[in-house]
Amino acid sequence: MRSDTIRVRTGNRPQVHDLTDECAGFVRGEGDGLLNVFVPHATAGLAVIETGAGSDEDLLLVLDELLPRDDRWVHRHGSPGHGRDHVLPAFVSPSLTVPVIGGRLQLGTWQSICLVDTNLDNAERSVRLSFLPSP
Amino acid sequence: MRSDTIRVRTGNRPQVHDLTDECAGFVRGEGDGLLNVFVPHATAGLAVIETGAGSDEDLLLVLDELLPRDDRWVHRHGSPGHGRDHVLPAFVSPSLTVPVIGGRLQLGTWQSICLVDTNLDNAERSVRLSFLPSP
Amino acid sequence: MRSDTIRVRTGNRPQVHDLTDECAGFVRGEGDGLLNVFVPHATAGLAVIETGAGSDEDLLLVLDELLPRDDRWVHRHGSPGHGRDHVLPAFVSPSLTVPVIGGRLQLGTWQSICLVDTNLDNAERSVRLSFLPSP
Repeated sequence: MRSDTIRVRTGNRPQVHDLTDECAGFVRGEGDGLLNVFVPHATAGLAVIETGAGSDEDLLLVLDELLPRDDRWVHRHGSPGHGRDHVLPAFVSPSLTVPVIGGRLQLGTWQSICLVDTNLDNAERSVRLSFLPSP
Repeated sequence: MRSDTIRVRTGNRPQVHDLTDECAGFVRGEGDGLLNVFVPHATAGLAVIETGAGSDEDLLLVLDELLPRDDRWVHRHGSPGHGRDHVLPAFVSPSLTVPVIGGRLQLGTWQSICLVDTNLDNAERSVRLSFLPSP
Repeated sequence: MRSDTIRVRTGNRPQVHDLTDECAGFVRGEGDGLLNVFVPHATAGLAVIETGAGSDEDLLLVLDELLPRDDRWVHRHGSPGHGRDHVLPAFVSPSLTVPVIGGRLQLGTWQSICLVDTNLDNAERSVRLSFLPSP
């Protein structure tokens, strides 16, 4: 299994960060197998959505509504309402598996692999890419 | 890795479509390994739930409440409120991995693998099944 | 693929039960590969969150809000509002894949693998652990 970690600059604003190019580059030249994308952070997740047409913004807005950045959270530290970032990964999982055939991700036309990072307190994130080839 | 795409007719109403039989048939005769189910569409996801006892209907109802089909969405095209279908995959992921032993899915008694398609504008969907065998 | 089932006592209250030690022990001594954790129950899921700082409690509270234990659910049996437990796995998936390198889970410092079981009617649960090694 080939596995490596990439660094992603997410800044101090909630972000949907497109990782598709990095993922596609990672499996290029490989054969068939499964790509696992894994975020080793407790306040971020991965989503497969269309980017650049408004859905990235829509996702952040609906997350603000479903998991409000207010004072309801028992887990308190960092920015106000940061506790909501700690429940995010229960709904937007930090693990994603994508099939690869002939070194190409089998994504649909409008699908992008995205890091969803609503955390305001960590400007840089790492993401682990692992390719398990077919035996 | 054996990988193939099946076609699913979902019609023009929101649907929870049971794929368990197709998945079970796909791995029959195989040994041990992981089945990856992947939906290459930006407006559908996969859920493992019980079907036929009301939960499929419950899921569509609660999705209408959590992700309302109204005019809040930045991403606008197709049917009114279609933007909600574009954030669905962030919560109901288009990728699912199920363990297989001796050619049998290791699902619990009440679990079914379901395509969740709330999109009204695409009546036919494809789903990719990939079996990665144990080395 | 090495695969085994563990038993977890969850009692008759909603629970976020930390499985990290069992998962880490299961892959210890292995090489590289993917660990799949799978819950063969229709009313529980798996989340990767921080435990012991309040987020486990926060998750149960926000689940009570997003999926209320009231009489809206079509699927009715067992405890009042139990129908909400049946839609939970659509949002908190019963399948989770974690990369393993040199027999070690590649979790971040604050990540724990947790069984999320809001079901009041089943006091004991099983969880399947499967390690697919690199070829």
